[in-house]
Amino acid sequence: MKILIAPDSYKECLSAIRVAECMRDGLALSLPDAEFVIRPMADGGEGTVDALMYGLSGVKKEIQTVDMYRRPLTTFYGEIDRDTAVIEVANIIGMEVTSERNPHLASSFGVGDVMRQLAELGYKKVLVGLGGSLTNDGGAGILEALGLSFINRNGDKFEVNGGNLNDIVSIDGDIPQIVSEIEIVLICDVENPLVGESGATYTYGKQKGIEASEMAAFDASISSFAQLVVNYTGIDARTVAGAGAAGGIGYGLLSVGAKIEPGAEYIADIVLDDLDLTTFDYVITGEGKSDFQTKYGKLPVCVAKRGNMNGAKSILVSGGLGEKYDELYDYFLSMHSIADGPMSLDNAINEAETLITNTCRNIGRLLK
Amino acid sequence: MKILIAPDSYKECLSAIRVAECMRDGLALSLPDAEFVIRPMADGGEGTVDALMYGLSGVKKEIQTVDMYRRPLTTFYGEIDRDTAVIEVANIIGMEVTSERNPHLASSFGVGDVMRQLAELGYKKVLVGLGGSLTNDGGAGILEALGLSFINRNGDKFEVNGGNLNDIVSIDGDIPQIVSEIEIVLICDVENPLVGESGATYTYGKQKGIEASEMAAFDASISSFAQLVVNYTGIDARTVAGAGAAGGIGYGLLSVGAKIEPGAEYIADIVLDDLDLTTFDYVITGEGKSDFQTKYGKLPVCVAKRGNMNGAKSILVSGGLGEKYDELYDYFLSMHSIADGPMSLDNAINEAETLITNTCRNIGRLLK
Repeated sequence: MKILIAPDSYKECLSAIRVAECMRDGLALSLPDAEFVIRPMADGGEGTVDALMYGLSGVKKEIQTVDMYRRPLTTFYGEIDRDTAVIEVANIIGMEVTSERNPHLASSFGVGDVMRQLAELGYKKVLVGLGGSLTNDGGAGILEALGLSFINRNGDKFEVNGGNLNDIVSIDGDIPQIVSEIEIVLICDVENPLVGESGATYTYGKQKGIEASEMAAFDASISSFAQLVVNYTGIDARTVAGAGAAGGIGYGLLSVGAKIEPGAEYIADIVLDDLDLTTFDYVITGEGKSDFQTKYGKLPVCVAKRGNMNGAKSILVSGGLGEKYDELYDYFLSMHSIADGPMSLDNAINEAETLITNTCRNIGRLLK
Repeated sequence: MKILIAPDSYKECLSAIRVAECMRDGLALSLPDAEFVIRPMADGGEGTVDALMYGLSGVKKEIQTVDMYRRPLTTFYGEIDRDTAVIEVANIIGMEVTSERNPHLASSFGVGDVMRQLAELGYKKVLVGLGGSLTNDGGAGILEALGLSFINRNGDKFEVNGGNLNDIVSIDGDIPQIVSEIEIVLICDVENPLVGESGATYTYGKQKGIEASEMAAFDASISSFAQLVVNYTGIDARTVAGAGAAGGIGYGLLSVGAKIEPGAEYIADIVLDDLDLTTFDYVITGEGKSDFQTKYGKLPVCVAKRGNMNGAKSILVSGGLGEKYDELYDYFLSMHSIADGPMSLDNAINEAETLITNTCRNIGRLLK
């Protein structure tokens, strides 16, 4: 029996690698002779670099830059091959760096700075995992780092952030050729446009610390900034699906020629590419919580589809199963929560490793 | 595919019949062509009459008596056949009658009264399910109802209860032949002796409303009462396993010749007797909460053993799985909690029917 183990992380609980290892440990207790292949997965958020490094045997490297408050930061990128690198905004200007939330002062500058360094290091293609940012600057900071200048009414160039986009009266400068020539691929799991009710500010602003009373002002600032960018670049990416990702970083990078790819589908394609899925009997995947929305392009369904297409049977093991999860039976042979009885979310999180192992041990007995 | 569904009740949540029906409904969604046989089970407590009536096609009948406070009560017994009836103390002097807890005033009289009536109705054998009582009178009330008299220091006969056993100075009278000739079988899921640290009072007194400060006095009263009974009957049942069941009702009835049977084993034997278990592929059972103690004669393990011995595979579906439940893998192919994620006990109880159905639907897909 051959089993592919390819879960997403359990968000705010366990990395995809630990989830996968616990799944393997549990299954192996019941299926000691089975062959296991592990591929921790991601959807563009935190864990994207690890998933690609693990699946593609890449190398994780350190790099110096600044965080969202322009403080010195040592972070990392992944080298997939000599031409291709991958970064995560979560680990430069996001939740993995600090829990401080100040959307007025936060800037995406560090992401652009890392991209510029990667171009100078010779990479031709940079994948950018967009999940988990704590900025809401429309990507202005990135454009500044890549070489554009933002000018205020006094004619001075200044450092942009979420709170001062309204001070921009004009844009100046060019992105150096070495930077503008790199291929940028945004790995993104949302489809929001830049502004408006379903835009970056109104949809994700709250989790970044924007008060309800500030929403309209932030949305208007990004809107006026975007109009200046459209005028300057001649590219209008404001309504492209994903422009509203990562506080508008999607928009900023689309405006300088980035492509956007649906996170989970894209990662599943890359990470599973070297495997002959027809040789697997079962695919085990999962995420923190699954419900009917999981079928809209979330990682477990992306993985299951690829398994099912190749004759494997897919099994979902998630922290919890939520609203109308039975709609996912189109993709999964069976679906399991790791909860072994009534318990608090805190307990489930604290005990997740044991609970995953136990649940998969039990499933393994049924697969024998 | 042929599946036996034989769960215990989920205590304080769902009757065994409803548990079994939900299991069947869920499995049938995935296994529409399977043949299901339902046998709701019990362990001697509440649900014992229903389990025996369902499994043996008996008839449930109404009967008039008094509750533990000697107030008029309409309750029921089960007629298994013309010679055999079954009663539950829980539905005469227990938790199914009232939640009022007054161990000083509570008496087991009603149980004896029903037994006497059943003898007069012509039954030759009475099964007594001992679980769920709210009395702690050593069975004195039953003996009074069956025909013995308890005499105080003034030479007067009086009505006994948990609080006045110390007033008994002598015992008088005889149990009428028609009553003494019936065969009494106590269906009991505990092994406690009558008195002492592991006796009726210290082990179960608290849930009957006995304060910590009263424990010693209650235990001593039952002890002195029991000595009088030993002297009067010549039978010493004080240390028989199960004498401490139901506030000492075990003891009282053992003293007049009752036999005692381990509840779950006895009920599993009777209720599954007509089935050829070799024809079943799977046995589904369960209870409110399962842990390593389930292996000590609890209903799900009794059912599983019988299935396994006959070549079926047994699957456990319980409300929750607790401490060291992996020790139960000796009996079960797989074990499942109905919880579909972190949730409170209240939510699990309120949603139990849906959760059981969903869980069994999922299991059914793995059995295909």
